[in-house]
Amino acid sequence: MSSKLKNAKRIEGLDKNVWIEFTKLAADPSVVNLGQGLPDISPPNYVKEELSKVAAIDSLNQYTRGFGHPSLVKALSCLYEKFYQNRINPDKEILVTVGAYGSLFNAIQGLIDEGDEVIVIVPFYDCYEPMVRMAGATPVFIPLRAKPVDGKKWSSSDWTLDPEELASKFNSKTKAIILNTPHNPLGKVFTNSELQVIADLCIKYDALCISDEVYEWLVYTGNKHLKIATFPGMWERTVTIGSAGKTFSVTGWKLGWSIGPKHLIKHLQTVQQNTIYTCATPLQEALAQAFWIDIKRMDDPECYFNSLPKELEVKRDRMVRLLESVGLTPIVPDGGYFIIADVSLLDADFSDMKDSSEPYDYKFVKWMTKNKKLSAIPVSAFCNAETKSQFEKFVRFCFIKKDSTLDAAEAIIKAWKRQAS
Amino acid sequence: MSSKLKNAKRIEGLDKNVWIEFTKLAADPSVVNLGQGLPDISPPNYVKEELSKVAAIDSLNQYTRGFGHPSLVKALSCLYEKFYQNRINPDKEILVTVGAYGSLFNAIQGLIDEGDEVIVIVPFYDCYEPMVRMAGATPVFIPLRAKPVDGKKWSSSDWTLDPEELASKFNSKTKAIILNTPHNPLGKVFTNSELQVIADLCIKYDALCISDEVYEWLVYTGNKHLKIATFPGMWERTVTIGSAGKTFSVTGWKLGWSIGPKHLIKHLQTVQQNTIYTCATPLQEALAQAFWIDIKRMDDPECYFNSLPKELEVKRDRMVRLLESVGLTPIVPDGGYFIIADVSLLDADFSDMKDSSEPYDYKFVKWMTKNKKLSAIPVSAFCNAETKSQFEKFVRFCFIKKDSTLDAAEAIIKAWKRQAS
Repeated sequence: MSSKLKNAKRIEGLDKNVWIEFTKLAADPSVVNLGQGLPDISPPNYVKEELSKVAAIDSLNQYTRGFGHPSLVKALSCLYEKFYQNRINPDKEILVTVGAYGSLFNAIQGLIDEGDEVIVIVPFYDCYEPMVRMAGATPVFIPLRAKPVDGKKWSSSDWTLDPEELASKFNSKTKAIILNTPHNPLGKVFTNSELQVIADLCIKYDALCISDEVYEWLVYTGNKHLKIATFPGMWERTVTIGSAGKTFSVTGWKLGWSIGPKHLIKHLQTVQQNTIYTCATPLQEALAQAFWIDIKRMDDPECYFNSLPKELEVKRDRMVRLLESVGLTPIVPDGGYFIIADVSLLDADFSDMKDSSEPYDYKFVKWMTKNKKLSAIPVSAFCNAETKSQFEKFVRFCFIKKDSTLDAAEAIIKAWKRQAS
Repeated sequence: MSSKLKNAKRIEGLDKNVWIEFTKLAADPSVVNLGQGLPDISPPNYVKEELSKVAAIDSLNQYTRGFGHPSLVKALSCLYEKFYQNRINPDKEILVTVGAYGSLFNAIQGLIDEGDEVIVIVPFYDCYEPMVRMAGATPVFIPLRAKPVDGKKWSSSDWTLDPEELASKFNSKTKAIILNTPHNPLGKVFTNSELQVIADLCIKYDALCISDEVYEWLVYTGNKHLKIATFPGMWERTVTIGSAGKTFSVTGWKLGWSIGPKHLIKHLQTVQQNTIYTCATPLQEALAQAFWIDIKRMDDPECYFNSLPKELEVKRDRMVRLLESVGLTPIVPDGGYFIIADVSLLDADFSDMKDSSEPYDYKFVKWMTKNKKLSAIPVSAFCNAETKSQFEKFVRFCFIKKDSTLDAAEAIIKAWKRQAS
């Protein structure tokens, strides 16, 4: 092939992607899919109905404002000023993006330069690393480390950052840290004191915080989601990212948002206007209308921000019991809709797997999907090369699923255990 | 402000955008908007109805395949293989993107390196230049030059590239040329011999062609849209870009696609998976269903690909007559839905405009929007700094508008002329 028919250097080596590989595997309709973070529960009816209504309105099928449809940024500003306790300028402090994924990209491309360092907490949502590399920057990894379990339940809160180790990762080249709370895949909800350690270091080293909070509503009894942007001195250096897909169980709408000070958001806006220019109008308008319904009843248990975590907590507890019943020790998540467990106790036969260089969990999930018709996501996909071995016995199960799907998963796992014993 | 709370270098100076500026101006509901390329005619009913239907289906509100929803890439492959006269692999030779804009971005980021040169034909759709610069490459500009008019009608086909001048722009650093046919803003439809000149140079210099063909269906009597990717030796080096917004008059859906050989498309896919991952599912499914309706009746005059250009040709002719009736000499477009004209004969008073460093057309459109309640887009926005002066007497009017909108524009322009005479 000619020398010019090739990729640009910035994407060299960034073509691997866990979702593409494992989503293809799980596409077989006979597979019970607890893999990708994709609800199979119904989204709220009013959310779907708003989209049906909007589709019929001619003008809402045409371009809208590039940085966010006016009614949507207004709804977002109204919603979030309750948490930030001050007014959020809908035009200058909010950017609507193609999913939270698009917000991450815009923040990283808009703010991170070649040669910068970006601190990434391991395990991490898998796109953080290639996005940082695509910007020519160096990801600096710090693992969450587990406390000993002591025979009790193992909780996501048992996984913490060592403050001294974290401090050692910061230096004058540190441009940003990417925070994710509630955390995917661990389900950890960062506490006030944990966030204060991060905030202090950001301020000390004049670093930015890119705070991925897409599971912000999904926190379980005894936990509270806190926004690091509300810590003293942090608003001016934080971009907080949210997601319509996670908020309203419509991952296919691919709408997200960044909130932050004008002096940061304007650079994300510049990236947007040179990449995709604007997001889909009908989805933005429908989302705005859905938000207004729930903004007006936020103290009501029927508000989706309150009802969904209640519904999911039952599913979480069910998954915990199921995994424990077959002798596993799941890490009980305090937030999010994933649960991870060391699966090496489950019997699996990799003898016919040719590609033996893959981590244990990759082989395990491929084997399980093919032989047990159950899919999940290998946790080492959320690790850099050096830490994959620490996490390769873990897989991630998604539990935002109908009871019938969880029933099917339960039947598979229990039969598997019986067969082995 | 601290040294780290600032933008990445790659977006330095790329924050200006004509759409943001002029869309805001035209947002006043009393303004007759012939600015942004945004239909105010109704999209076909079946297109809107498909979206309403899809919105009610749970699974179609969740994530789909990242490189394109399976039913949509299948429809696109079926549609386009009629033109390429060979099979197009829906998974490997098509990528669905956030609008054609997203395809342009993916192609440029995926294929263009720092230090490369990219040939851009002036005037150009405005994002080409900042996108090339964001990739660290150098845009090399070549203007379309007008033949003398001789008192006859002035046609977009009177604007041509000088083959020798074009050849002089190619060299060993030339990574790509960005072609746009039918051309925005001129409406030029490149002919077989014009495309052959470009193809020969691409092959000679081993350069890529990024062919923006979003107005592919919108060609008027006596013209034919040709795809440079079908020229001998060009498939392997061409990415062809299309748009749902332009095809079905739903610009707000923000769906586009790139078609090309696997060895190029895979790099655009890599960019996609590290920027937005996937496009909205409900819109993709609705678009696929709409395509099937028209794919099955492509020889029928009712097929939207045939009926829309017929409808628009009447509007084009009306705009030509209107502009001529007030003494202007519009450049009659052979394709697309814009018409440009030198407006310096129209009376305008810029005496209260403070920002006198702006090109004539910027001042003219601002003045016209404020004082005549008619908006358009300044053509110098489609030029690099050096060529703005060649085009600053021109403005672009969009004619994919209801008759009542064109009536209102006609009334404004005729009254303006009467007032002046």
